[in-house]
Amino acid sequence: MLPDLQLPVVLPIRAGHVSVRRATTDDLSALVALLSDDPISAARGDRGDDLDLEAYAGALTGVLDAPLNDLLVVDAADAAVVGTLQLTLIPGMARRGATRLLVEAVRVSSSARSGGIGSAVMRWVMHEAAPATGATLVQLTSDAARVDAHRFYTRLGFADSHIGFKYSVGS
Amino acid sequence: MLPDLQLPVVLPIRAGHVSVRRATTDDLSALVALLSDDPISAARGDRGDDLDLEAYAGALTGVLDAPLNDLLVVDAADAAVVGTLQLTLIPGMARRGATRLLVEAVRVSSSARSGGIGSAVMRWVMHEAAPATGATLVQLTSDAARVDAHRFYTRLGFADSHIGFKYSVGS
Repeated sequence: MLPDLQLPVVLPIRAGHVSVRRATTDDLSALVALLSDDPISAARGDRGDDLDLEAYAGALTGVLDAPLNDLLVVDAADAAVVGTLQLTLIPGMARRGATRLLVEAVRVSSSARSGGIGSAVMRWVMHEAAPATGATLVQLTSDAARVDAHRFYTRLGFADSHIGFKYSVGS
Repeated sequence: MLPDLQLPVVLPIRAGHVSVRRATTDDLSALVALLSDDPISAARGDRGDDLDLEAYAGALTGVLDAPLNDLLVVDAADAAVVGTLQLTLIPGMARRGATRLLVEAVRVSSSARSGGIGSAVMRWVMHEAAPATGATLVQLTSDAARVDAHRFYTRLGFADSHIGFKYSVGS
């Protein structure tokens, strides 16, 4: 958990508002549904198979218990879970001792997309959550195939200055 | 600190060996020198100015105290500090609950480059450190201008599958 983050927070969107809160173990099935509601994630193994539920449940406990991490859930006004993202605070020496806020696993439900939810949540991360946690740099990586997401992040003020490398252990 | 990492570790290189150990506050000036021994980092503000020493000292304490993080130093056989890197373990829900090992701020002293040090250290991260900490994915970003570094990571087995986005808070 990131104790400096004041949550839940209500964010206005065009059609009303959403709220961002900390995930709990009760969110397991909604989180798995969000992860598998995306062809690129599904291709990496997030298909929401019942066989994977135990792995996801263990992972959820691991994230909820992890210091310097916060797993967040976005609720629509009718309380439906419409999004998720993970924040990791990383102290570091580079950039004159900059603390980074890493954003991972951003998902907005396909049924709720284009409603400005992703943009409201990312602006909150950039302009509220990062300063509150002492971070001076916000960073994330996005699959090279997600061309729409790249336009989205650039429009928000992110620089596409880096290449993101991944290695699957044992591959 | 990542308690599952057995350190220090001795790694063979072509001209003998290097050892990887945890940084201490005594490494402050060597770490600042490594960070500023690089034109891209210098352009981002890591110039090793005396005025910045206090910020670096505070950051070093922050990293050394941070759970799920390990700041590592690479010593040459003559005990000279020739490299550094930071590891951050990130539990997560995506990719069927994969735990990630994020590698940040990799630097090898310009005087020691092309000696196989970076390659020995990264292979240790991929094949020893990641499995020891329970990570199934190793990830890092590299400035788009570091073309040689990209060849290096691809050769080691990393996929350049992502775009890395950064936002400087307040910019």
